[in-house]
Amino acid sequence: MESTINVTVWNEFRHELNYEPAMKIYPQGIHRVIGDYLSKQRLNVTTATLDEPEHGLTDEVLNRTDVLVWWGHIAGDEVRDDIVEKIHDRILNGMGLIVLHSASQSKIFKKLMGTSCNIKWREANEKERIWILQPNHPITEGLGEYIELAEEEMYGEFFDVPAPDELIMVSWFQGGEIFRSGMTYTRGKGKIFVFRPGHETSPTYHNQEILKVIANSVHWAAPVKGTTVPVFGNVKPLEEL
Amino acid sequence: MESTINVTVWNEFRHELNYEPAMKIYPQGIHRVIGDYLSKQRLNVTTATLDEPEHGLTDEVLNRTDVLVWWGHIAGDEVRDDIVEKIHDRILNGMGLIVLHSASQSKIFKKLMGTSCNIKWREANEKERIWILQPNHPITEGLGEYIELAEEEMYGEFFDVPAPDELIMVSWFQGGEIFRSGMTYTRGKGKIFVFRPGHETSPTYHNQEILKVIANSVHWAAPVKGTTVPVFGNVKPLEEL
Amino acid sequence: MESTINVTVWNEFRHELNYEPAMKIYPQGIHRVIGDYLSKQRLNVTTATLDEPEHGLTDEVLNRTDVLVWWGHIAGDEVRDDIVEKIHDRILNGMGLIVLHSASQSKIFKKLMGTSCNIKWREANEKERIWILQPNHPITEGLGEYIELAEEEMYGEFFDVPAPDELIMVSWFQGGEIFRSGMTYTRGKGKIFVFRPGHETSPTYHNQEILKVIANSVHWAAPVKGTTVPVFGNVKPLEEL
Amino acid sequence: MESTINVTVWNEFRHELNYEPAMKIYPQGIHRVIGDYLSKQRLNVTTATLDEPEHGLTDEVLNRTDVLVWWGHIAGDEVRDDIVEKIHDRILNGMGLIVLHSASQSKIFKKLMGTSCNIKWREANEKERIWILQPNHPITEGLGEYIELAEEEMYGEFFDVPAPDELIMVSWFQGGEIFRSGMTYTRGKGKIFVFRPGHETSPTYHNQEILKVIANSVHWAAPVKGTTVPVFGNVKPLEEL
Repeated sequence: MESTINVTVWNEFRHELNYEPAMKIYPQGIHRVIGDYLSKQRLNVTTATLDEPEHGLTDEVLNRTDVLVWWGHIAGDEVRDDIVEKIHDRILNGMGLIVLHSASQSKIFKKLMGTSCNIKWREANEKERIWILQPNHPITEGLGEYIELAEEEMYGEFFDVPAPDELIMVSWFQGGEIFRSGMTYTRGKGKIFVFRPGHETSPTYHNQEILKVIANSVHWAAPVKGTTVPVFGNVKPLEEL
Repeated sequence: MESTINVTVWNEFRHELNYEPAMKIYPQGIHRVIGDYLSKQRLNVTTATLDEPEHGLTDEVLNRTDVLVWWGHIAGDEVRDDIVEKIHDRILNGMGLIVLHSASQSKIFKKLMGTSCNIKWREANEKERIWILQPNHPITEGLGEYIELAEEEMYGEFFDVPAPDELIMVSWFQGGEIFRSGMTYTRGKGKIFVFRPGHETSPTYHNQEILKVIANSVHWAAPVKGTTVPVFGNVKPLEEL
Repeated sequence: MESTINVTVWNEFRHELNYEPAMKIYPQGIHRVIGDYLSKQRLNVTTATLDEPEHGLTDEVLNRTDVLVWWGHIAGDEVRDDIVEKIHDRILNGMGLIVLHSASQSKIFKKLMGTSCNIKWREANEKERIWILQPNHPITEGLGEYIELAEEEMYGEFFDVPAPDELIMVSWFQGGEIFRSGMTYTRGKGKIFVFRPGHETSPTYHNQEILKVIANSVHWAAPVKGTTVPVFGNVKPLEEL
Repeated sequence: MESTINVTVWNEFRHELNYEPAMKIYPQGIHRVIGDYLSKQRLNVTTATLDEPEHGLTDEVLNRTDVLVWWGHIAGDEVRDDIVEKIHDRILNGMGLIVLHSASQSKIFKKLMGTSCNIKWREANEKERIWILQPNHPITEGLGEYIELAEEEMYGEFFDVPAPDELIMVSWFQGGEIFRSGMTYTRGKGKIFVFRPGHETSPTYHNQEILKVIANSVHWAAPVKGTTVPVFGNVKPLEEL
């Protein structure tokens, strides 16, 4: 029997409180839509938001989280540096991280990448088609050849991130750009999945295929049960010198 | 509930029939030792050997195999080319492949790699220590920092294979060489794990950590349930031209 | 002073002899247009075609070739297997290979990849925009953010090849597809660059940016001067056992 | 004619001023030994050290530096954060970085990697044999199968860094460990080479093969002449919406 995975869905939760177009689509917040879906997929879900004490990410919450799903945008700078440090430490020790849409500009993601994470962007409600390049990857389980979104924000290359461990998806945009939309990274013992779509005024997180990708990625990013514990520092020789 | 994975353990099965040192360690063949272990790990195991009709790999067997474990050595040239083609086709369509020890010189592995797969080697019963470089990988689940084998054949670099998708293990040898001992590749929809140890006159496949790696790799290499079916050939445009 | 690089530009050279639209654009053959450009870039150029004896690839020619540029299409099956073997051997020993357009379906490329190399395709003279993902790579030296081609054949994913060492370019197509258009691989000591554009009825090889990429890639793929000579086979220990 | 590459060799330069065993081997500092060698390889060399004003890395110096070679150890924490930021920014914009030995624990390297960069280590003057895994890479030009160092500090895995773009060298240590000793990374437009050996009390930087690797890596890491300038931020569509 598979052990339950503890997921914490974190959301900045600002647009949905004060920006009409976002409120309409996600009246209770992006975290609730994603969290509700994941709850139905044999996952043990908690949500947390920026304006809760410690952003909802107390030591207790972080320590029991197997996979952290992150959505953030305009208030990224308000995330406390000491909490970013704690998240970073947890990831290096095995917690998974799912980086959604503009979370690619978050403090934690930039810290993990070591680059600017700069992108091109455009808000024009244009069509996006996400092509799948790894047809037998756990993250693309159950999908067709591509996912089509009628209206999304555009993100364009050059996306200033390191080459990923795996390039799983590339987006085509109506306006003429492409973007590496699904990528995996490993940092320390932590598995990271970066998933491009999810603008706050597009109904993307109501799309069943998008939700399926997120659920798949949570299962993929969860730490293996008995992970190797690396030994660091000064050691004695294993062979006679 | 997880669906059962069908594993076929293929063995050349020649040394164990006519070479005293191998007969002592594997009286019923390497395939039986590995197969017996995998049977206890919730896996549905079949064995097959070179001298059976069609090498035990009929269409029926290949079509129901999710993961093929392969051990071969001196009689690699006797494997029929038409059967190699069938195995190749099955791998591109999603069957996993676990390449054990000298199977790195097999027809099927060379065909998948596109290189000579040449190595250095030495039979001197020397110590091997397999270091783990990916502490949170499904294939290394439950292991410590390294696996130590008191007596093994040496394989040394340069190993003429493409850079792997993931480098999971590197061996240290007493005689002064190193070797990339655990590597993953993807070819088509097929996942491949190459695992170095397992000389026919060393008791390596009686080692519980080695067996654990093989079992872990079978779970990792099994095809995902609903894989994307790529469309090839001439297609109509998705957008108006 | 840099030593001269010997380039052999190989072309199937059939379309340009009997297919009107190709004859118009490349009256003397694709190989002549590419060869003439490379000759002006401090490169020592030879051309060779399918219908010459030994396809123009005698041992003497192959042995002195540092980088082989390959364009092939409808007559790929007519390339002799023994010559493919020789090319393969030369690549493993350090000769570079530039795989242009439909050469991605050639015997030599399939042999190097170990996969089907299948693609989607469409001949509709649609717009292609090749985005550059590695802005400081020798192969993209001197280029802007993208290359635009007004009329090209479409190639679409899934492209059944192994994950590349480096993904350098991704194409956007007007009809809604994307494609990994610039990729590098290493096989043995040989460096390989796969470059998507170049349909026989499009004026692509008259485009200065496309030609610049090919010239850049030749410089990149040329063997380094004093390459390490790997030792294979049975060896004595370097340390006392 | 090749344009001259401007190299800045930076050294902490503390051990060589006050620790007898280091003073003996590098009486004028590690930077002088490396710098003198590079000067003879058609490179334009400057040196800089921790205790100079701004650590010798003024804006003027950084802006003209094509490749920065870095050796640091016990005083890594004294490197000013604002200067680390400037170096980081220069690397993302194309400056190369050569990370020598304990510089793998430096602020700038950790910032680029996004991980702890933790290692195992031992000072026992043991034998190290650096095996070459990429026999046709510009960084290994002119080398044999391995480099042997009679006495070095040991570094052991798990080395907590992201998977490299290229794994070029792996070390064997007498005491039983292995280590990924030569690795390349790309961050932004900057090329990074991490090269393990070079303990302050070992004569490693007097070894001609080690010096050759450093010189090769400087040539490899230098920015290409006309690099693509990425455009970031809000952009207009390239196609009609």
